[in-house]
Amino acid sequence: MNYRTVFHNLGNILTIESLFMLLPVLTAAVYREKAGLAFAVTAAFTFAAGMLLAHLNANPDRLRAREGFVIVGLSWIVISLAGAFPFFLSGEIPSFTDAFFESVSGFTTTGVTVVSEVEELSRCILIWRSLSHWLGGMGILVFMLAVLPLRAGNTVHLLRAESSGPSVSKIMPRIQSSASILYLIYIILTLTEAVLLKLGGMSVFDSLIYAMSTAGTGGFSTHSAGVAVYGSSYIYTVITIFMVLFGLNFNVYFLLLMRKPREIFRKSEVRVYFLLFFAATATIALSVYRIYGSAEESVIYSAFMTAAFMTSTGFSVTDYTVWPLYPKVILTLLAIVGACAGSTCGSLKISRVIILMKTAFANLRRLSSPRSIKSIKMDGKNITKETVSDVNAFVTIYVLILIVSVVLLSLDSDSITTAGSAAVAALSNVGIGFGSVGTMGDVSFFSPFSKYVLCFNMLAGRLEIFPLILLLLPATWKKY
Amino acid sequence: MNYRTVFHNLGNILTIESLFMLLPVLTAAVYREKAGLAFAVTAAFTFAAGMLLAHLNANPDRLRAREGFVIVGLSWIVISLAGAFPFFLSGEIPSFTDAFFESVSGFTTTGVTVVSEVEELSRCILIWRSLSHWLGGMGILVFMLAVLPLRAGNTVHLLRAESSGPSVSKIMPRIQSSASILYLIYIILTLTEAVLLKLGGMSVFDSLIYAMSTAGTGGFSTHSAGVAVYGSSYIYTVITIFMVLFGLNFNVYFLLLMRKPREIFRKSEVRVYFLLFFAATATIALSVYRIYGSAEESVIYSAFMTAAFMTSTGFSVTDYTVWPLYPKVILTLLAIVGACAGSTCGSLKISRVIILMKTAFANLRRLSSPRSIKSIKMDGKNITKETVSDVNAFVTIYVLILIVSVVLLSLDSDSITTAGSAAVAALSNVGIGFGSVGTMGDVSFFSPFSKYVLCFNMLAGRLEIFPLILLLLPATWKKY
Repeated sequence: MNYRTVFHNLGNILTIESLFMLLPVLTAAVYREKAGLAFAVTAAFTFAAGMLLAHLNANPDRLRAREGFVIVGLSWIVISLAGAFPFFLSGEIPSFTDAFFESVSGFTTTGVTVVSEVEELSRCILIWRSLSHWLGGMGILVFMLAVLPLRAGNTVHLLRAESSGPSVSKIMPRIQSSASILYLIYIILTLTEAVLLKLGGMSVFDSLIYAMSTAGTGGFSTHSAGVAVYGSSYIYTVITIFMVLFGLNFNVYFLLLMRKPREIFRKSEVRVYFLLFFAATATIALSVYRIYGSAEESVIYSAFMTAAFMTSTGFSVTDYTVWPLYPKVILTLLAIVGACAGSTCGSLKISRVIILMKTAFANLRRLSSPRSIKSIKMDGKNITKETVSDVNAFVTIYVLILIVSVVLLSLDSDSITTAGSAAVAALSNVGIGFGSVGTMGDVSFFSPFSKYVLCFNMLAGRLEIFPLILLLLPATWKKY
Repeated sequence: MNYRTVFHNLGNILTIESLFMLLPVLTAAVYREKAGLAFAVTAAFTFAAGMLLAHLNANPDRLRAREGFVIVGLSWIVISLAGAFPFFLSGEIPSFTDAFFESVSGFTTTGVTVVSEVEELSRCILIWRSLSHWLGGMGILVFMLAVLPLRAGNTVHLLRAESSGPSVSKIMPRIQSSASILYLIYIILTLTEAVLLKLGGMSVFDSLIYAMSTAGTGGFSTHSAGVAVYGSSYIYTVITIFMVLFGLNFNVYFLLLMRKPREIFRKSEVRVYFLLFFAATATIALSVYRIYGSAEESVIYSAFMTAAFMTSTGFSVTDYTVWPLYPKVILTLLAIVGACAGSTCGSLKISRVIILMKTAFANLRRLSSPRSIKSIKMDGKNITKETVSDVNAFVTIYVLILIVSVVLLSLDSDSITTAGSAAVAALSNVGIGFGSVGTMGDVSFFSPFSKYVLCFNMLAGRLEIFPLILLLLPATWKKY
């Protein structure tokens, strides 16, 4: 383990985070809120610590795969810790465990919360919660790669360890331009949504909050009742469309920029994504028609909740906990499957599920015709054995974490629905669920121990497990 | 596909089944029950059909892997169909769907039932239900291999397709002697249990029923209240011990016969099996102590229910549905993990779970140190890549079937607990559950469609998926 490299990068990450804290400071100044002081103090200390750490470990060595994972794993713990201080220091979340939980939920774009009355929070706190979604969605290390020049060859391990899905696609020749263009697309999409929401009658502040939360597929909101307070089909539809857009692989937007729109639907993941979305929306709408008595309402609510669960955003627009059993099962499954690789969403990702299924059925055919060994293809390309092993290992450990966390939460839950929902909501970064977790993902009733279990799940989910689990393996820390 | 071979073997299987139907005929003669006529008629027709099918397709060709799977898959459907007729013809289960369901539940050693009042059934019906458990437990094709001389090389594909666990161990040099010795051990263990139960005060009839149901890890009982009617710690303990014994890999008994007892605990599956059993029993006993207020009762009930779920037997001795959430979650997980490969139990099997975990963590280490590629070992032997792929494919399709069946059952269930429990109870062949499924696995409330879903799950679980799924793939039926 090359500690100099690790500390250098952690320092840079903290410095960048401290600069983002200026947005809540500014918000506090505009609305004259006392909580702004907590942000100013935290920003100052974080900046100083970051600069110190980076400069004491200047001229880092080459970064290998192992350091890539360690930097990514530690960064997310460290930025969540720093991000928790404003909640705690302002006194608006009095327990540090709760403040840390809220911060992890923010950066991992989960959106479960320990705050039952969101309306009582200061605006600078609200904007920091949504900004953490926005930063966590695309990845704060990706942001670092976009703005800081790094030695070539060093960056690929970081990008690979932080980005989502089975493999980083190689559309862009250079990582730094990839990272910059990713963030550029991200900013444009976010601002477009904010403008459209403003046009629908939201305040500027709310439209920014909702746009950032949607972009990061997070789910923090400004009201305890969620998006439902607006009572506007237009706003519901805009948010639904943008949830779906942020659930797409960002390569889709590269392809659009390169004027190759036909390529988009040649990707099986994109086709399956839209197929799942429309099939789930249609069958759920049928199933809830009895409740609403209006086709329009049924479709709008079904599409919204399908997108909210599938893209792991976790906004809610209606009390879906009173829906029949079928939609509940489908929404939970969509939460576990997730959306496209290379999006800001959590969960397994559709491409992993496709690879898993293709491998399993290819193996089945091999059993009955042992001599017909065929390679497994996706989008015309062979899937390598390493990718297949990675996907199998990923899903195995994902399910293992899910099971262990359900067992631990069952010691502290009123029903299997609550324990299961909380574990899925955290690990898949969806942030809402059923049972006591409910439409706002309010988990304030859990013990501190259960909250740390959920923190682990949220981080494991956002970092796609490996960077976090590798921190726990002794082999990671041994000398070269 | 070589149809002559398939039909020849199906004929033999039916002939064997018809001979076993003489036991209920005899029972009916002793107790002077009218239902015995239904067995006599079914036995006669089944015998005739079996002989005809076998002789019309005499001198079959070589049996390849594909035919092995097809014979196993079709056999189990055919024997379940034939076994359903006595239930239906006697009028004791008036719907044929229900009769088929009960028969599938019997042969697959599941033990879910459509009969709410078991006491009202004739004794010949009761003995046929438990006999189907006993035959299904070790496998009716294994019985055929034990009694019929088959061309060498033909049998291995049948044994491999019907037996449980990731691979058939090669302890015995010849398949036919393997099959005979397996059944010999099976008979001795069953009779031992029957004698011990008789000594505990059971009637001869009941002790035979319970011994056969335990041996097949089935779960059909003679009373609606289950084993609890006996109120005897001695009987509970005997059944617990035999459930655990039938959950062991039968190679363990080979090793005992060969006087190599030390080898037994060198097998990691056996160690993990006992570890899981004792850990679950201890923690569940702690968790339910408040309910019973007696350490002895808590331990006896915990051990009994742990064994009942883990070995997929599904007897019940107390109303565990009122237990806290933690034991419920553990019992459900044990039902999914199951016991040892090469036992009469259902579910994933512990060795598969061990291989899955070892592979996943080996892959994780490869990520951080790409050059350290090590082979994965179990009990000192390398696990081949084919075994790893098979296990991954198995678990993937297992989970897929579980998910699809929960979705289908959710259209017809009052709660996720009922839908999930029913799907697990059927696929894992446990036969009891939570929610409306309850301590007796009474699923009479489901619609016929849901019952067929459960039949599919039971067969898929007992046949370890592949023989059943291969029947559905067009590639299986194509010419060579």
